[in-house]
Amino acid sequence: MNIAELIDRRNELLGTGAALFYTEPLNIVRGEGVWLFDADGKQYMDLYNNVPCVGHANPHVVEAMHQQARTLNVHSRYLHEGILDYAERLLSHHGDHLNSVVFACSGTEANEVALMMARYATGARGIICTDAAYHGNSTEVRKLSRVAASNTAADRDVRAIPFPQCYRSIREGVSQEKLKDLYLEEVRAAIDAFVDSGVGFAGMLVCPILANEGLPDIPAGFMAGAAELVRKNGGLFICDEVQAGLCRSGRWWGYEVMNFVPDIVSMGKPLGNGMPLSAVAATTDLVNSFRRKTRYFNTFASSPLQAAAGMAVLDVLERDNLVASAAEIGDTLRTELRKIQPSCKHMGDVRGHGLFVGIEWVQDRDSKNPDREGAIRIANKLKDKGFLLSNAGVLGNVLKIRPPLVFEQQHAESFLSAFTETLLEQANES
Amino acid sequence: MNIAELIDRRNELLGTGAALFYTEPLNIVRGEGVWLFDADGKQYMDLYNNVPCVGHANPHVVEAMHQQARTLNVHSRYLHEGILDYAERLLSHHGDHLNSVVFACSGTEANEVALMMARYATGARGIICTDAAYHGNSTEVRKLSRVAASNTAADRDVRAIPFPQCYRSIREGVSQEKLKDLYLEEVRAAIDAFVDSGVGFAGMLVCPILANEGLPDIPAGFMAGAAELVRKNGGLFICDEVQAGLCRSGRWWGYEVMNFVPDIVSMGKPLGNGMPLSAVAATTDLVNSFRRKTRYFNTFASSPLQAAAGMAVLDVLERDNLVASAAEIGDTLRTELRKIQPSCKHMGDVRGHGLFVGIEWVQDRDSKNPDREGAIRIANKLKDKGFLLSNAGVLGNVLKIRPPLVFEQQHAESFLSAFTETLLEQANES
Repeated sequence: MNIAELIDRRNELLGTGAALFYTEPLNIVRGEGVWLFDADGKQYMDLYNNVPCVGHANPHVVEAMHQQARTLNVHSRYLHEGILDYAERLLSHHGDHLNSVVFACSGTEANEVALMMARYATGARGIICTDAAYHGNSTEVRKLSRVAASNTAADRDVRAIPFPQCYRSIREGVSQEKLKDLYLEEVRAAIDAFVDSGVGFAGMLVCPILANEGLPDIPAGFMAGAAELVRKNGGLFICDEVQAGLCRSGRWWGYEVMNFVPDIVSMGKPLGNGMPLSAVAATTDLVNSFRRKTRYFNTFASSPLQAAAGMAVLDVLERDNLVASAAEIGDTLRTELRKIQPSCKHMGDVRGHGLFVGIEWVQDRDSKNPDREGAIRIANKLKDKGFLLSNAGVLGNVLKIRPPLVFEQQHAESFLSAFTETLLEQANES
Repeated sequence: MNIAELIDRRNELLGTGAALFYTEPLNIVRGEGVWLFDADGKQYMDLYNNVPCVGHANPHVVEAMHQQARTLNVHSRYLHEGILDYAERLLSHHGDHLNSVVFACSGTEANEVALMMARYATGARGIICTDAAYHGNSTEVRKLSRVAASNTAADRDVRAIPFPQCYRSIREGVSQEKLKDLYLEEVRAAIDAFVDSGVGFAGMLVCPILANEGLPDIPAGFMAGAAELVRKNGGLFICDEVQAGLCRSGRWWGYEVMNFVPDIVSMGKPLGNGMPLSAVAATTDLVNSFRRKTRYFNTFASSPLQAAAGMAVLDVLERDNLVASAAEIGDTLRTELRKIQPSCKHMGDVRGHGLFVGIEWVQDRDSKNPDREGAIRIANKLKDKGFLLSNAGVLGNVLKIRPPLVFEQQHAESFLSAFTETLLEQANES
């Protein structure tokens, strides 16, 4: 079946509007490590997928899942050591105060748990997010998605601040310190508005590296300052580590990069290397009070199969020290991309943490005018050359480079060559 | 590690209040077909678990998942034939008008989708549920859980009707036909209340066999009548088939047992035999409009691994004609239990559909006073004998018998012997 026929069949069975990547979508049939293969046998280097963090079809994870699936996979109302061992090991990578965990299936479900936890603990409902966030697809979590900066949220329980960034900041020509204070003022104003309106203030939920916002450079000290402000006002600071966490950033967690400690952490995507698995870590008190109030039960979560997949992922991350590798190779990518930058006026900003790199695509560096179409063109050209990445960010103009963490120096080099080649071709075309 | 130590460790790591079955919880380490095994090697017949519908550790499903996991497991923004084949085959078991599907990970996520779908399509928010329902654990779906019959719902977008039943009906001594009309009056009143309050009427969401309500005998014609009433008033009828569906009831879907056709169907638990997989089937128009409005994306859903698990489950269900077997063996169970009933005054009502049997436990048949403690005692005694079931229903007094669908005549016989023995022992004790 050719691509056009597959698309027709997909539109019929799954409905139109189920998003596909690329102008000519790919029919991917096999994966291995950092590689994906289409039905024609064409090979692609995967620079997009963070879920298969230890590589597509990682044999250690595949075998662990197989072994567990053929032994037992049942819900959590029986005891099972596997899930306790996994909980303990996952929590060992967090600070001492995050010592209990609630498992769920998806990042959406984790953020649902985190929101309920904060609201039950504080007895208030107001949650601060950023104006370009995405935290999941449920009715409640969607309220935090792309809330208008004007705070005309559909729900009065949610208020957005302009996401903190250095590249297109709320005031030009001021120091980072000043900028940090300006953004913290926005947090304070949102807290005050919740208190004034009688909604009350429950907390703040953000991705510590603002992945969906476009991975901006955040004014130094903002996250730590915001967490302090939130706590001082009786709220809880929730870190959405669904994208930032599990070694992606060159540290185990995004909050370490930002040098602060959250009260509640939600985790998802890479935890099971593709097996649906998410988690919320918090203090035992917060978890207890959440469980007491909700009697939370999740059929597929806290299962032996989730535990087996999660454990196997931790095995590989620890054994191969992928956190160090992510830091090192991510630095290489940024350094080399910055060397290329002067020769391409469209590369407005090169940034990120570990193996999560963003290139903000602009019409030219002076105007900083976002060039979404240009970013899309580059992504499609690179796809044709066998390199998969995507455009992201609130303006859709940030090239997102976020490969499996088994991405090696040689892969970085080969990508950088292809990227340079693409820029040259593009320059010759225009 | 002994049971007490495991419980302590679990309380610490997962928080207290994460529910466990039985006075002395079980440490289950292995499953096979209808059997579960604890760490001491003790064997239990599983009469509770509906998720592993084709049996614990079903080899065909395990191998299909293994094969797919070692080949490819990636998100749905690339094309993949596997998920289309699965969508087509799953939909082929529904009526002709349910011809598109949205995949998700959990029953909660499926009901989230179903609610959004109905609300976007109607432009209204009011949803009718029953007063003893449970449809999932998210903030929005929880609003449908155990809503007070007095309609003092926390959310004015939700109204509950007393769940329709013959055993403890809203009026004694009337015909089933009359009873049906009385319950339909409740539906009409809820619709009117939504219209009068300005909330508007979006639809009704119920399990077609009212599983969580306690699996009551429903006055004949109620579901069909309610669906008609809902549609006449511009609403959509959503069937939650998470528990009722996929051959459990002796038909493929609970709505077939009730002889009507819903507009939207949510499915979950047994679809992947333990692999997190859920789905919402509806008309293509409803799915299209949902996708257009929400741009719904679910990282772990619509994946090749979900498709492989789901396909393998359908293989076994179809190959072994488990729908017929569920009907037949379920009938045996009910027939034999009803023969025992006269000798035990606590067996107030024996009912159900297919391999989903409920025994309402009462102090005595005349008073019908619910005896939750008695039901719990029986469940614990049977557990000690090696037979696993649980108590359920709004009053907690319904013994729930819901084994994997590979449950055979010999298993039914062996359970019935143990059940009779337990009743005799109990009679001698009191």
